[in-house]
Amino acid sequence: MSKARNMVVAQSGGPSPVINNSLRGLVEAARGFPQIGTIYAGWHGIEGVLKEELLDLSGQPADEIALLRVTPAAGSIGTCRYKLRESQTEDFERLIEVFKAHNVGYFCYIGGNDSMDTANKVAKLANERGLGLVGVGVPKTIDNDVGDSAFKLIDHTPGYGSTARYWAHMVQFANEENAGSSPADPVLVLQAMGRKIGFIPASARLADPQRELPLQIYLAERPVTLEQMADNINGLLRRAGRAIVVVSEGLQVADIGEVKDSFGHTQFSSSHLTVAQAVINGLNARGLPVKGAARANVPGTDQRHNMIYASTVDLDEAFRAGQMAAELAAQGTSGYMSTILREPGEIYNVRYDKVPLAEVANSERTFPASWITPDGTDVTDDFIRYARPLIGDDWPSIPLIDGRVRLARLKPLFADQRLPKYIPQADRKLSQN
Amino acid sequence: MSKARNMVVAQSGGPSPVINNSLRGLVEAARGFPQIGTIYAGWHGIEGVLKEELLDLSGQPADEIALLRVTPAAGSIGTCRYKLRESQTEDFERLIEVFKAHNVGYFCYIGGNDSMDTANKVAKLANERGLGLVGVGVPKTIDNDVGDSAFKLIDHTPGYGSTARYWAHMVQFANEENAGSSPADPVLVLQAMGRKIGFIPASARLADPQRELPLQIYLAERPVTLEQMADNINGLLRRAGRAIVVVSEGLQVADIGEVKDSFGHTQFSSSHLTVAQAVINGLNARGLPVKGAARANVPGTDQRHNMIYASTVDLDEAFRAGQMAAELAAQGTSGYMSTILREPGEIYNVRYDKVPLAEVANSERTFPASWITPDGTDVTDDFIRYARPLIGDDWPSIPLIDGRVRLARLKPLFADQRLPKYIPQADRKLSQN
Repeated sequence: MSKARNMVVAQSGGPSPVINNSLRGLVEAARGFPQIGTIYAGWHGIEGVLKEELLDLSGQPADEIALLRVTPAAGSIGTCRYKLRESQTEDFERLIEVFKAHNVGYFCYIGGNDSMDTANKVAKLANERGLGLVGVGVPKTIDNDVGDSAFKLIDHTPGYGSTARYWAHMVQFANEENAGSSPADPVLVLQAMGRKIGFIPASARLADPQRELPLQIYLAERPVTLEQMADNINGLLRRAGRAIVVVSEGLQVADIGEVKDSFGHTQFSSSHLTVAQAVINGLNARGLPVKGAARANVPGTDQRHNMIYASTVDLDEAFRAGQMAAELAAQGTSGYMSTILREPGEIYNVRYDKVPLAEVANSERTFPASWITPDGTDVTDDFIRYARPLIGDDWPSIPLIDGRVRLARLKPLFADQRLPKYIPQADRKLSQN
Repeated sequence: MSKARNMVVAQSGGPSPVINNSLRGLVEAARGFPQIGTIYAGWHGIEGVLKEELLDLSGQPADEIALLRVTPAAGSIGTCRYKLRESQTEDFERLIEVFKAHNVGYFCYIGGNDSMDTANKVAKLANERGLGLVGVGVPKTIDNDVGDSAFKLIDHTPGYGSTARYWAHMVQFANEENAGSSPADPVLVLQAMGRKIGFIPASARLADPQRELPLQIYLAERPVTLEQMADNINGLLRRAGRAIVVVSEGLQVADIGEVKDSFGHTQFSSSHLTVAQAVINGLNARGLPVKGAARANVPGTDQRHNMIYASTVDLDEAFRAGQMAAELAAQGTSGYMSTILREPGEIYNVRYDKVPLAEVANSERTFPASWITPDGTDVTDDFIRYARPLIGDDWPSIPLIDGRVRLARLKPLFADQRLPKYIPQADRKLSQN
């Protein structure tokens, strides 16, 4: 047996436009370290690791790995929403078995706070079992809700800049529609992702840092009543004749019920009624100037799988965060997440560093209350200064073949299965229900 | 008084990503003809002409007119949904007065079938009044519903190719999300525009001409029941484990009520419940494998105001259709619409020509029934052969300044008002209600 030990990488949670570029950074950097052997991906996240479904990334054509830069979301290796709870001891033991069976010495988890917690627990347990596993995390989330509120552990997560750019540009285009539309159609409601935290809807302000557009932004952090919204919007209509209204999917509007998903998250994307729908119904019913005056766009998952809007800054940072994780792994620095920290100064610059997984897992980021304007319909210039650099200054370069986007297509090269079949614990419970 | 007579151009109906490029073609070409004087735009369409709100396009900086290429929708000169009915004789007489007062000899209307009818009637009446007005139409609609079903009057309308490209690429990206998503989240419903005609949802097939993706497409032409849909989708889930379902906003699903707008059109974008929402609620309620399994994206107006997806073929054709209209006007060829006709042969090529406005106004295009597959969940290769060339092979080039899109910004140069104030007839009725 060579001294090199193999690596398993897995993704968790909702995807981002740049998640695959972190994967690419990891794979391309890990290839350069002799102590790292074959790199496997858990097929659909940690569930794939539990089921011993390990996709061989080292065996893929270099061209396809390179194309991960322009391939959004998680179609290449998959993701999952499987939560590894402390009580699921069988699952943890199974992971150790899989790692042993495939000589895995490095485990990299790309995800949010929960994933960093999982990576930490897995590495700890493996080391208790004498496996000497190096566990490393790579940050990812469009919501920008990883780390602390003081931005000390991480300035922003890869993924956020691209979704912010989506909103910055999409709102600019939407304004051309709204400005040109007929007086009978003056209100356009746009529903943004971010169930609990306002970084995504806030980024709509990047479309208009000078505040020239008739734009109102409602974050989940500030519950409103339909009456307040209608008053605000009618005021804007009187001043500007039209209104673009960005609402968080998690906005609590009095008299609109909430729907919870199986994780207990407020869940609108598969709910009975989206916030946007409820808001336009409510507005149309109560005293907007013209009947049928409000319409809504719900871009939904598009804002996290659209490569055309991807920020080149975000793409590059995602790649570097992946590279950094490979380096941490190769150095044997277990229990850390690669991170992006902003350098002081007027000109945007970042450095790549590491922070303990345990600290990330125990932190909770909130949108700074001081970045929300007192009337609750906008964000401040401090937010603009924070977010503006993240959307970059260039278009991504995306190859086309025969009119379609040329996306990475990985070959189905799976590691031989050496262990008995295994059903992840939470899936067993699910199938009993 | 110089022999040159002035031109009025106006837009009507919903915008498209390339409508301004037709305007640019018109303006840039008309400038070259000595018989055409100042070019005015009706501010917000024909309503602006009635109100004598005439934006001077000839006085705009050449740079801003050039930027109309990358400026989507109708924010620059506005559009309206004002319908000029034959019975509104006061409106027609008012138009003549406005044209006389501003020495207008050329009237160009950019729009769909109704607009071609209006352009024709206006030119006829003006000529009965001895005004010698040249009335010319420029085709525009993302729905591709202008002209005849045999594609003899026009092969396709400017605007359609860009919205088709939107769907081709957006579905490719959505597939990356759907392929990577957790097994608990296997159905993604995407709602496409096109209240009555299926060209837009059909273009989702351009994402996957080889039929490798788990994609079903439901056109407004084929009413379904929720039960049929659930059966179809469950079948796809059994085969592929996941499903991308494109539904027309005008799809008639049994047990889902319809909502009509003020024109009597079925109107979902500002309705009580969108089709997508109703479909996912229905699917989630009846026996998809996992609870909460279907989610929906409703891109809404984004598909007609998104410049990033614009087809370069569509952009160029829209420009040429505008140029052609200027040429028809300059030649005094009244009563015609500029048109795009496909040349025979395997390699896509078009020529620009003219067709009588009256013929266009009296025609009705339908989506060829033979292009819908027998099971009603897909379109055929004939559709692909028709639509594929329209989405082009290149990305549009869109300038950025400080991270934002640099859009055309016209100056508010309005012609002096020489007539008494006038309230368009239909607006009077509206304010009485």
